[in-house]
Amino acid sequence: MEAEIYDWLNQTGIDTPRWMLLGQGEIPVLDFYPVALKIHSPKVIHKSDVGGVALGIASSDDLYLARDAIARRLLAHGITLDTSDQFIAVEMVEGEELYAGIVRDEIFGPVILFGKGGILLELYKDICYIDIKADEAEIERAIKTTRISKLFEGYRGCHVTMEDAVSFIRKIQKLYQDNPTIQEFDLNPTKLTSRGLIAVDARIKFGSNEDAKPVVKRITTFFDNKRVAVIGASNDQTKVGYAVAKNSLSFRGELFFVNRKGGELFGRPLYKEIKDIPGEIDTAVITIPGKLVIDALKELIAKGVRNVIIISAGFKEAGGADAEKEIEKLAREHNLNVIGPNCLGYFEATKRLNLTFAASSIESGGVALISQSGAVLTGLMDKAWQAKVGFSHVVSVGNMVDLNFAETIMMLQDEPSCEAISIYAEGIRNGKEFLDAIRHSRKPIYLFKVGKSNESKKAAFSHTGNLSGNYEMFEGLFKSVGVHMVDNIEALLYAPRYKASEVLVVTNAGGPAAILTDYIVGRGKKMVALTPDEMSKLDAILPSNWSRGNPVDIIGDAMSGRYKQTLEVIASFGRVELLYLVVTPQFMTDIANIARLCLQEWPFQMIPILLGGEVMEEAKALLRSRRILYFESLKEATDFL
Amino acid sequence: MEAEIYDWLNQTGIDTPRWMLLGQGEIPVLDFYPVALKIHSPKVIHKSDVGGVALGIASSDDLYLARDAIARRLLAHGITLDTSDQFIAVEMVEGEELYAGIVRDEIFGPVILFGKGGILLELYKDICYIDIKADEAEIERAIKTTRISKLFEGYRGCHVTMEDAVSFIRKIQKLYQDNPTIQEFDLNPTKLTSRGLIAVDARIKFGSNEDAKPVVKRITTFFDNKRVAVIGASNDQTKVGYAVAKNSLSFRGELFFVNRKGGELFGRPLYKEIKDIPGEIDTAVITIPGKLVIDALKELIAKGVRNVIIISAGFKEAGGADAEKEIEKLAREHNLNVIGPNCLGYFEATKRLNLTFAASSIESGGVALISQSGAVLTGLMDKAWQAKVGFSHVVSVGNMVDLNFAETIMMLQDEPSCEAISIYAEGIRNGKEFLDAIRHSRKPIYLFKVGKSNESKKAAFSHTGNLSGNYEMFEGLFKSVGVHMVDNIEALLYAPRYKASEVLVVTNAGGPAAILTDYIVGRGKKMVALTPDEMSKLDAILPSNWSRGNPVDIIGDAMSGRYKQTLEVIASFGRVELLYLVVTPQFMTDIANIARLCLQEWPFQMIPILLGGEVMEEAKALLRSRRILYFESLKEATDFL
Repeated sequence: MEAEIYDWLNQTGIDTPRWMLLGQGEIPVLDFYPVALKIHSPKVIHKSDVGGVALGIASSDDLYLARDAIARRLLAHGITLDTSDQFIAVEMVEGEELYAGIVRDEIFGPVILFGKGGILLELYKDICYIDIKADEAEIERAIKTTRISKLFEGYRGCHVTMEDAVSFIRKIQKLYQDNPTIQEFDLNPTKLTSRGLIAVDARIKFGSNEDAKPVVKRITTFFDNKRVAVIGASNDQTKVGYAVAKNSLSFRGELFFVNRKGGELFGRPLYKEIKDIPGEIDTAVITIPGKLVIDALKELIAKGVRNVIIISAGFKEAGGADAEKEIEKLAREHNLNVIGPNCLGYFEATKRLNLTFAASSIESGGVALISQSGAVLTGLMDKAWQAKVGFSHVVSVGNMVDLNFAETIMMLQDEPSCEAISIYAEGIRNGKEFLDAIRHSRKPIYLFKVGKSNESKKAAFSHTGNLSGNYEMFEGLFKSVGVHMVDNIEALLYAPRYKASEVLVVTNAGGPAAILTDYIVGRGKKMVALTPDEMSKLDAILPSNWSRGNPVDIIGDAMSGRYKQTLEVIASFGRVELLYLVVTPQFMTDIANIARLCLQEWPFQMIPILLGGEVMEEAKALLRSRRILYFESLKEATDFL
Repeated sequence: MEAEIYDWLNQTGIDTPRWMLLGQGEIPVLDFYPVALKIHSPKVIHKSDVGGVALGIASSDDLYLARDAIARRLLAHGITLDTSDQFIAVEMVEGEELYAGIVRDEIFGPVILFGKGGILLELYKDICYIDIKADEAEIERAIKTTRISKLFEGYRGCHVTMEDAVSFIRKIQKLYQDNPTIQEFDLNPTKLTSRGLIAVDARIKFGSNEDAKPVVKRITTFFDNKRVAVIGASNDQTKVGYAVAKNSLSFRGELFFVNRKGGELFGRPLYKEIKDIPGEIDTAVITIPGKLVIDALKELIAKGVRNVIIISAGFKEAGGADAEKEIEKLAREHNLNVIGPNCLGYFEATKRLNLTFAASSIESGGVALISQSGAVLTGLMDKAWQAKVGFSHVVSVGNMVDLNFAETIMMLQDEPSCEAISIYAEGIRNGKEFLDAIRHSRKPIYLFKVGKSNESKKAAFSHTGNLSGNYEMFEGLFKSVGVHMVDNIEALLYAPRYKASEVLVVTNAGGPAAILTDYIVGRGKKMVALTPDEMSKLDAILPSNWSRGNPVDIIGDAMSGRYKQTLEVIASFGRVELLYLVVTPQFMTDIANIARLCLQEWPFQMIPILLGGEVMEEAKALLRSRRILYFESLKEATDFL
C-alpha cells in the first residue's frame, strides 16, 4: 500500500511527495497543491483500470468533487466502498526524472543503480553502479561517471548538489542495511526538485538474505619461496616439465627436480619421489599429467609444502571437475596456497623464480601481472620483453581453484617490488571480495575485462555460464573503487609505465601530428602548452616556419641533427615527462639516425612512432634489437594512454 | 510577438499549441485547457519579470481572474494597459522535450539541428545534423543517429513515427526555402505529444542571404593524361625532380623531361625550355622552386596544358599567398585543372602514371585515395604496398588552390578503375558542394577527418583559422549522405577491402579470441553462427574439447596440420567471407608453418593475427616478404571494421 511505503521511506529519511490519507466522510484540508487523488484500499489493485485515480487537483473544492467522482466510477465497476476504505492525496511534484534502485547481482550481491530515469533510462543508459558498502568518495566517483551528474554541479541552476546526491545514496545504503532481505528495490521515478531529491514512486520485493558465506582469510603469503621443487622436471625438450625446469634455473634459492624416471637434468639430480627430496620444501610446481596431480599433492603436503602451482591441465575445463574439487578440499584442509590448475605458471622477481613454461625472457620490474588466460599472458610477456616492461610477479591463475584475484591483490600489498597491479580477467567470482581488495589496495590497479558483448561472454565463459556478468556493472563498480579500466590488452603493460598527464609531440609532418593530437586529447591527456620562453628557445634552433606550438612540427626537411637539437632543447625545459617522436619518410629523412636518438638517455619518456613500411624497416629492426618500444600506427601508439 | 510567430509557423504546417488572443474586455471562451496566460503587448518585453505570466489555468473562471491579476501586477510595475493591449492564452502541452533549429555554418551554410531538447540537450548532445537540402532518406539516416529516434520506432508506445519526424524536418526545410534570409531559428522546446510534434516556443533571427556564390563546374577531367611533362626533372638524386622523373618512367604515354640545364636523364633528353617540347602537352608536373612556378605555368599554358600538378612548396603555407592567388587566377582564366601546390603528386593506374615523389611502390587497384597531407599519404602508400592494397588514383591535394575534394569526387565517378574513394581531410571549404558531390557519388566514400579536439584543429589549421569547423557537424552531415566515417587512418586502406558483415575466428587460445570477439561486435560486425551441419563437419576433424562455436577454438596443442584442416572444412561451407586466424605461441605451435597457410589461396579473406614478439618474428618476416597484411594486436586488427 502506497501510504505504508511512503511512511517507510520517510522514516529512513528519503523524501517523498507530501501526502495524506483521507477517509470517505472527511473534509479534506491540504496545504499542498496540485495533488493526485487515488483510491487507497486493498480492494483495488489496478487503480487506473477502474477509474481510481484523478490527477491535477488544484483546490479543496476540486478534491471534494474528485473523491465523489472516483467513488462513482468504482461503483460502476462493481466496487462498493465502505467506511474502512480510504483515499490518498499525493502532491504532484515537478522535476527531472531520475532513477534509483537496488538489484541483487550474482557476482556482486546488492548493488545500487542511480541515474537518469523515465523513458530516457533505456535510451541513454546514463546510470552508475554503486556498491552497497561504498563510502562517500566511491559514491561520488560513481555518480560523476553519469552525464546527469552535471546537474549536481549547479548546471542550469539546479539546487541539488553532489553532496545531496551522495547523501541520498547513503540513505538507500542505510535502508538496505536495515532490511537486508531486500531483493529488488526501485525508486522510479525519483524527481529532482527545488526541494531536493524526491522519491515519487517505490517498488520493493523482499526475499531471503543469500549473501555469500564469509571467506577465510589466508595466513601465509605465496610470495615467500625458499626451497622449490619442480615436479615433472623432464629431459624431454618437447615437455612442459623441461621448459619449467629450464626457466627455474635462475632461482636464487634451493631448487629440486623430481621425475619418476630419475637421472639428471641441468647437472642436478632428478629425484624419483617427492619424499626423496632432502628436507622440507615450501613451494612446488606440478607439470605432470592431470590424473597424477592429486597423489603428488598429498606427497607434497607430507613434505610441508605451503605453495603449489599446478600447471597441469585436464581438470574442470576438460571434464575433470571432481579432481578439481579434491584439490580445493586439500588446499582448505592443509592451508595450502594453490595457483591453477591449467595455467602458465608463476614468476617472482626478487628471487628470480621463474616457474612458467613461457618461451620469452622476463625482465624484472615493478608490474605484477595476473592473468586468467595463459595465451593472453604469453602474448603479453613477449610484448613486455620486447618493450622492456619488467614484472615483479606474474601469476597465471588458470582455473582459480584456490587463489583468486582478490587474495592475490591482498598478498601483493606487502611486496615492495610490486608498484602496480595489472589484471586480465574473464569471469569473476566473489565480486564483493574483489571490490574490497581493490578498495584497500595501496598499489594502482589496471584491469582489462573481457565480456562486453554477449558473443564474447559465450566464447570466454562457456563453462562458467552466467558468471560472465554485466560488463557495465563491472566497469562501473571497478571504476568507483579506483581501478584504471583499460580497453586494450597491451595497456596492461604500458599504462602503468606512461602516466604523465601532459604530452609533447615532435614531428616532421603536420598531418600525422594533428591526428595524433586528436587521439591524445581523446584519451583524456593534455598537450603540453609551451611557454613564450620555451618557444624562443625553439625559435633559436628551428626554421622560421616551424609550428610555434605543440605539436612541435620541425618541418619536412628535418634530418636527425635537427631532431637531436630539438630534443636537447626540450630536455632543457626540465618539465616534459612524455614525448612522442613522429617520423615520416620525407625525401631527405635519415630515418635510422633519428631512430638512434631513441637509444640515448633522455630526461623524458620518449615513444617513437615510425610511419611507413619498407623504408622504415632498418630503423624498426634497430629499435627491436635494442628492445625499444615503438609504434607504426598513430592510434595504437595512444590506445593505452 | 508570440501570436505572429505561432501564426507564421501554423502557415508552414508546423504545429504549435492551440492559442488565442484575448482583448481586455472580452469574455474568454476557450476549448483547450490548461493554458498559460501572458500579456501580449509591445510595451512588455520581459514578461516574467513584471508578473506578466500565469500558468496552469484550468477553467474560464480562473482565466478571468488571472487576466485581472496580471493587469494589477503590471500596474504595480508602472505599466498601464489600454484597449490596444492584448493577452494570449496558450495551451500547455505535455511531452518529451525535443529541440529543432537552423544554424548557419561557415562551411556548410544553413544546417538543421534536431534531437533531445530541454536541460538535457547539452548533457546528452543527442542531436543530429541535417543539410538544408537533404532528401527524406538523408533526413531519416540523420535522425536514426540519435538515441531519441528509438521513440519514433514505437518505443514506449510513442505515437510519433519516423515518417512524422521526417515530415516535421521537411516543413523546416520548406520554411527556410520560403525565408532564405533566416540566420538563426530555434523551436525550443518542440514537444513530443500524442497529437504529434508541437513547437512550443520559437525564436528567429533574419539577416542577409550570404549563400556562397555559384561554383563554375569544370569541363574537362584531370584523369585523361596522354602527353606528360616533368618540369624540373633532375639528375640530382637528392632532388624531388629526380624522384618524380624516376617514378614517371612507368607511364604508358608520351613523357617529356624539362630542366634548364639540359642534358639527359634515364636515356631521355632534358629540354631546356618548356617551349622546346615537340607538340602540345596535356599534363605537367612542376617540381621547380616555388618562385619559378608562375612563369613555368604561363609557358605551359602556351603549350596547351590542361592539367598541372604543382609539387613545389613555398606558397600560402610559407607566406607565398600572393603567388597562390596568381595560380588560382591563371587556372580560372585558362580553364586549367591544378592539383597542389605543396603536395606529394599524383598517380593514375590505367596508364601507370606515377607523378609522385613517394619512395614506395604503388600497386594498381580499386581505391582512389585523396589526401590533404603529403606525410599522411606517404605513410598510407607504404602501408598499402605492404598490404597489397591497390590504387586507381592517388591525389595529393596539397593547398587546394584549385581542385578540391568535391570536384575530385565528381571526376572519379566516370573512372571505371575506381571502385571506392578514400579521403583524408583536414580543413574543408565549400561544404555544401562537398556534400553534393558525395550525395551523387556512385562509389562508396570513406573519410577520415582530423580535428576532433580543439588542440588538433589548432595543429592542423593554424593557417585556415576558423574553417576547421565543428567535428560533430561534419560527422553528422557526412554520415547522413552515406559516407563511411573512419576513426583510424589505416581504415582508409582496409575498410574498402574488408566489407563482410559477418566474421569467423579460428584460434588456438580462448582468451584472445574472446577479446577479439568483443572488438568485432563492438565495431558493429556479426559473428558467423555455425549451423549444426557445419559443427559436425568440424567435430569430425577437431579434438572433442574444441569450442563448438565461433570463435572456433581448435585448442592449444593445434599445429599447422590442424589449422589447415580447419580452414579447409570452413572453405567447404562456401559462405564465410572474412576470417581472422589467431595464432598464440603455445609450447608446440609451429608458427612459421601456420603463417605459410596464409600464402595459399582461400575462398575467404583471411587476416592473420600473430600474438607474441620474438618467437613470432620468423613468421612475421615471411608474411612481410610476401606482402600479406597481418596484425600483432587484437585491437588494431579490428579497428578498421
